[in-house]
Amino acid sequence: MTTAGKVFLVGAGPGDPDLITLKAIKALQQAEVVLVDDLVNPDLLTHCPQARIVHVGKRGGCKSTPQPFINRMLIALAEQGQIVVRLKGGDPFVFGRGGEEMLALRAAGVAYEVIPGMTSGLSACASMDVPATHRGLNHGVTLVTGHTQDGGPLPWRALVESNTTLVIYMGMQHLADISRELIAAGMSPAMPCMVVESATREDERALVSTIEAMPLYSHQHQMKSPAMIVVGEVVKMANSAKTLQALEQFDYLQAVNAN
Amino acid sequence: MTTAGKVFLVGAGPGDPDLITLKAIKALQQAEVVLVDDLVNPDLLTHCPQARIVHVGKRGGCKSTPQPFINRMLIALAEQGQIVVRLKGGDPFVFGRGGEEMLALRAAGVAYEVIPGMTSGLSACASMDVPATHRGLNHGVTLVTGHTQDGGPLPWRALVESNTTLVIYMGMQHLADISRELIAAGMSPAMPCMVVESATREDERALVSTIEAMPLYSHQHQMKSPAMIVVGEVVKMANSAKTLQALEQFDYLQAVNAN
Repeated sequence: MTTAGKVFLVGAGPGDPDLITLKAIKALQQAEVVLVDDLVNPDLLTHCPQARIVHVGKRGGCKSTPQPFINRMLIALAEQGQIVVRLKGGDPFVFGRGGEEMLALRAAGVAYEVIPGMTSGLSACASMDVPATHRGLNHGVTLVTGHTQDGGPLPWRALVESNTTLVIYMGMQHLADISRELIAAGMSPAMPCMVVESATREDERALVSTIEAMPLYSHQHQMKSPAMIVVGEVVKMANSAKTLQALEQFDYLQAVNAN
Repeated sequence: MTTAGKVFLVGAGPGDPDLITLKAIKALQQAEVVLVDDLVNPDLLTHCPQARIVHVGKRGGCKSTPQPFINRMLIALAEQGQIVVRLKGGDPFVFGRGGEEMLALRAAGVAYEVIPGMTSGLSACASMDVPATHRGLNHGVTLVTGHTQDGGPLPWRALVESNTTLVIYMGMQHLADISRELIAAGMSPAMPCMVVESATREDERALVSTIEAMPLYSHQHQMKSPAMIVVGEVVKMANSAKTLQALEQFDYLQAVNAN
């Protein structure tokens, strides 16, 4: 049953309230109800003073609202004829479970629209002046999670051999395993690695080291979630004024000369 | 030599003028000069009526302004004390050569700031209601180009074995090769594939087929650059009202049941 209601699945971006799109702001401005994740910057709600705010979910955390409950709430509100914004950190379609919500809405015959957002992993790179891709250094960039849904192993060897920058979401609890697996799969222990905590927020912090040394270094600095792990030669280009660099100063000119 | 000038390396997003960030708009509003790529939507220049506009470069095309010339222009303008915006389609740090411009600015001692944008590949997926990642269907998403800088082969087997959605930039000229290489590397010929032309623009068009059939199908429909090639099970979720679907109707419920 299609009704006058509609659900916008909206990416809030990585944390900096200015890294939201104009399209997302326009959706917020017309919302009657906004369902918002805990990871979303509350400053963004200034775009929708007219809306009822419902706080749901916590990605990667303990006290999350179950996804089926959120799906049912979205459907019920839209069927009441409401304009609903589902506001999610980053991009709803990059580790945001937006696909699950979309399929539920589609199956229920509810009108919806997807508004993508800046995904946190690529934003974390940019925030530290690290280009995710760079001619001569890699073939591209791969966004993965630090663990699989079923607990099985990630295809580490393929990830290493893809010669792409690896941006690992939700990996902090598994950082030691990730480091060991990548090296076991053939990655150089000296491969540059960066951890960015609370990327693009005011309390953002970043470390630069090697894939081998990062678990200890990150532990020493008590880096915690939400954080992004970035692995690849491009990390050499990290801005040394924004990042704490361990072991050696990477020389970004090395990266230029590699071309 | 540091001066009062500054260069903002800014992502314009994929084409839809509303898919630019608030941060990018704020940079445009204070710009004195804007160096803009041909792929950038000209509507975005309404945010900077005060600025002098310089058109440079054409990615993947023939009559591009040489990169070293652009680098020198950015440096010269900033050293004159100007506030400069370098506006690039998509994200400057995802196949945008933003890293090269940043390194040139850094080497010259010019102040700069990177403002990321929605990258066109992920935007193309969202525009067709295709989640780049989906629990149970893949481990993540890989953004690559359709060819290497030196003409050497891409690590096709690793890309297939990574079990990530592949989003291939600048690949239309090599679509037949890409299809053949992926199948030779072990990908099922029946793997869903989507081509999105002019993603998020008013003239956007999309085809859905299989990786085996797409070269012919794309040729029949005269799909052309700029276009994104998306390969992976998630393509089954493409909105059939927005995409032309060949060979068979993919059933998105299949994707749900796969979980």
